[in-house]
Amino acid sequence: MTTPPQGRVRRAPENFLDSAQIAEVQAGRREFLRQAFAAAAVGAPAAALAQAKGDPAILELPEHSRGLGQPVVARAYGSPSQHEKNLQRRESPGLTRVGASSVSFAPLQGLFGIITPNGLHFERHHQGWWDIDPHGHRLMVMGLVKTPKVYTMDDLMRLPAVSRMHFIECGANTGMEWGNVAVPTVQYTHGMLSCCEFTGVLLSTLLDDCGFDRKAGKFVLAEGADGSSLTRTIAMERALDDVMVAWAMNGEMLRPENGYPLRLVAPGLQGVSWVKWLRRIEVGDQPWAAKDEALHYVDLMPDGRHRQYSSIQECKSVITSPSGGQTLLDKGFHNVTGLAWSGRGRVKRVDISFDGGRNWRTARLESPVLPKCLTRFNIDWVWDGGEAILQSRAMDETGYVQPKISQLRAVRGTRSIYHNNAIQSWKVGASGEVGNVQVA
Amino acid sequence: MTTPPQGRVRRAPENFLDSAQIAEVQAGRREFLRQAFAAAAVGAPAAALAQAKGDPAILELPEHSRGLGQPVVARAYGSPSQHEKNLQRRESPGLTRVGASSVSFAPLQGLFGIITPNGLHFERHHQGWWDIDPHGHRLMVMGLVKTPKVYTMDDLMRLPAVSRMHFIECGANTGMEWGNVAVPTVQYTHGMLSCCEFTGVLLSTLLDDCGFDRKAGKFVLAEGADGSSLTRTIAMERALDDVMVAWAMNGEMLRPENGYPLRLVAPGLQGVSWVKWLRRIEVGDQPWAAKDEALHYVDLMPDGRHRQYSSIQECKSVITSPSGGQTLLDKGFHNVTGLAWSGRGRVKRVDISFDGGRNWRTARLESPVLPKCLTRFNIDWVWDGGEAILQSRAMDETGYVQPKISQLRAVRGTRSIYHNNAIQSWKVGASGEVGNVQVA
Repeated sequence: MTTPPQGRVRRAPENFLDSAQIAEVQAGRREFLRQAFAAAAVGAPAAALAQAKGDPAILELPEHSRGLGQPVVARAYGSPSQHEKNLQRRESPGLTRVGASSVSFAPLQGLFGIITPNGLHFERHHQGWWDIDPHGHRLMVMGLVKTPKVYTMDDLMRLPAVSRMHFIECGANTGMEWGNVAVPTVQYTHGMLSCCEFTGVLLSTLLDDCGFDRKAGKFVLAEGADGSSLTRTIAMERALDDVMVAWAMNGEMLRPENGYPLRLVAPGLQGVSWVKWLRRIEVGDQPWAAKDEALHYVDLMPDGRHRQYSSIQECKSVITSPSGGQTLLDKGFHNVTGLAWSGRGRVKRVDISFDGGRNWRTARLESPVLPKCLTRFNIDWVWDGGEAILQSRAMDETGYVQPKISQLRAVRGTRSIYHNNAIQSWKVGASGEVGNVQVA
Repeated sequence: MTTPPQGRVRRAPENFLDSAQIAEVQAGRREFLRQAFAAAAVGAPAAALAQAKGDPAILELPEHSRGLGQPVVARAYGSPSQHEKNLQRRESPGLTRVGASSVSFAPLQGLFGIITPNGLHFERHHQGWWDIDPHGHRLMVMGLVKTPKVYTMDDLMRLPAVSRMHFIECGANTGMEWGNVAVPTVQYTHGMLSCCEFTGVLLSTLLDDCGFDRKAGKFVLAEGADGSSLTRTIAMERALDDVMVAWAMNGEMLRPENGYPLRLVAPGLQGVSWVKWLRRIEVGDQPWAAKDEALHYVDLMPDGRHRQYSSIQECKSVITSPSGGQTLLDKGFHNVTGLAWSGRGRVKRVDISFDGGRNWRTARLESPVLPKCLTRFNIDWVWDGGEAILQSRAMDETGYVQPKISQLRAVRGTRSIYHNNAIQSWKVGASGEVGNVQVA
């Protein structure tokens, strides 16, 4: 099993912070930092000029400081730097592709903030992806409605629009970790996770438009136009809440592999319910028990029974850097960062442990903290060069606390594929190498 | 002067809302919509099936519903649908490129929400762009500091990080409209505007690290590594507030044309201060009056004097759809949408006029509404088929109200290039064609 490069490897600047010079217990992060920096400066009085002697890059005038650069026109639609080629979505070394049923994982270890660039959004196709002509695409709303209707894209896009940021996570994300450690990096443990600003029309607006039966209409079915004819049931209460019929992600039209020109956005629900290439909405009076909710996306419980319709993604978090496959090349100060999310609302708090769960400190949450959206956290850490086990534990606004893997197994057993939201542990070895471990 | 296609042209569904059936004055938007939809349904009782007769697309099983689609692997870094090729950043028909000094405009008419996809972020190069190797790039912090330092990218990326969403607008945006209408579409009137989630380290953290002189250090200079050696002065109070040294935009590393691997993010300030390919920060005791602040980016006032250092982008807004170059092909309900922003904080309110400024209604603001960030607004409109003049007027949390062009000219005259934040007017003709007009 080969592992691709895991983003930038941290190198060792000569004059950087030494943990021996730092008293982390000193009150106040700003004061903590200032003193740490001051101590480092004392230890390296020669500072910039001496530094430039050993590393003259700042003294040299490179070609790009002397010559004419590229004009704009060649990059009508831009792409990343040639130096960032390794940052790609990838198929997991732990999964086998079956026909066009395939998965690619987002490279969380190299991402920043909460927005996933569209070019790196994870993919899960049941029958492969298509680049559908929007002029020929239609959405039918039918079933227990007064007036069934067929919408063109233009019909939909003139309706009252909303724009909202939400995470999407495959129900099978982290699924291979139920038994024991299965894959080495955060791209493969947690990479079926992305977050976008979506634009579309609320499903409730369409149901209003068709005059749905509020007495009998208890459920909604969503169907995709690809060959898998994926269908998923959504309870009406949720459908009327924040579910969207969306045409845009991160400012532009959906990407083909993410459902262009139309997908369902079902905030808080597992990804399979976010039906891509959406072609039909049906209102009914009971769940459909479709193949993708009766046979797949069910949880095999310890007593041998299957749990169905457990589709809400519970509160979860993961440290994305440092994470499995990365290497810390020197001791001292490091920014530790990661993502937290909850299918039930806002993230309330994220605590971080550096000793496998014995002691915890609260991380800083970056703004904005939005409901059913990724939240980026950061925390200061001074690595003393010894072994450490890093964990993050998220809490959401309902009071729910992300469980340890042992707590989750006590209820769910080890035979599930889906809905593993356990605390993730990364072990930093004395060599600085970071690996995937499980801590009870 | 040729105008490229302006996003999707709205077509006319047979059974859509007729304004004659709608009383817009009825209270409550939801009730308004429901009644409008109900009225439309009465007018088209045959609904979906009759509709499908004339437009059988929903009844046909296209190839993508029967065959195997594409697997994931070919799209390691994805790109937009082939059907969205017209949505590009473009050079303006009203500007002449001088060497590598060039501008490309973001296609606001086809964007959604507040995030600008990195591939469509506007560009302004003084000496062209470069794809700089991050391993060789350095940032020097010097001047009135205790310990001048030279940072590698790795040094910077282990420091305490922040992620924040901010707009960036070129000071010359809308500059060609000072005298009269100069360009036909919103891409060229307002397209030097973008908005990203940026990740980096606060400049205040770096200044703390180098121990700057708080008494004498009143200003900061930022210098870029490209051939233009662009330099800009920033007041220390602002530098210590929310200015960032950023390496990431929208979740991934900066794009080359946006400053990879390092740029200044100076929230609320005009784009020229967001120095790209950042290589040097200097602390000093007075403004530098560099060429790009003494000769360029100054405002020629009516009395013949030049105003310098007027770098804050005042509150502004624009309707992006419908906008110049687009065509409304039928009467009835339309979602009208646009963007508002302020360099001084949050947008408080956006009002919309459909009659050239006589009557105003308040638009809905999409969440989140963040300081110094784009805010997306939407408002319902029923077009009666007659001439209409659409305007948006934004207010920010300081109480500042976006001015009419006549109000702005009364103070600033007509010889400025920069800092035009006047209300934009779009005229909808009886044919449905939308054009750029100026209304005093």
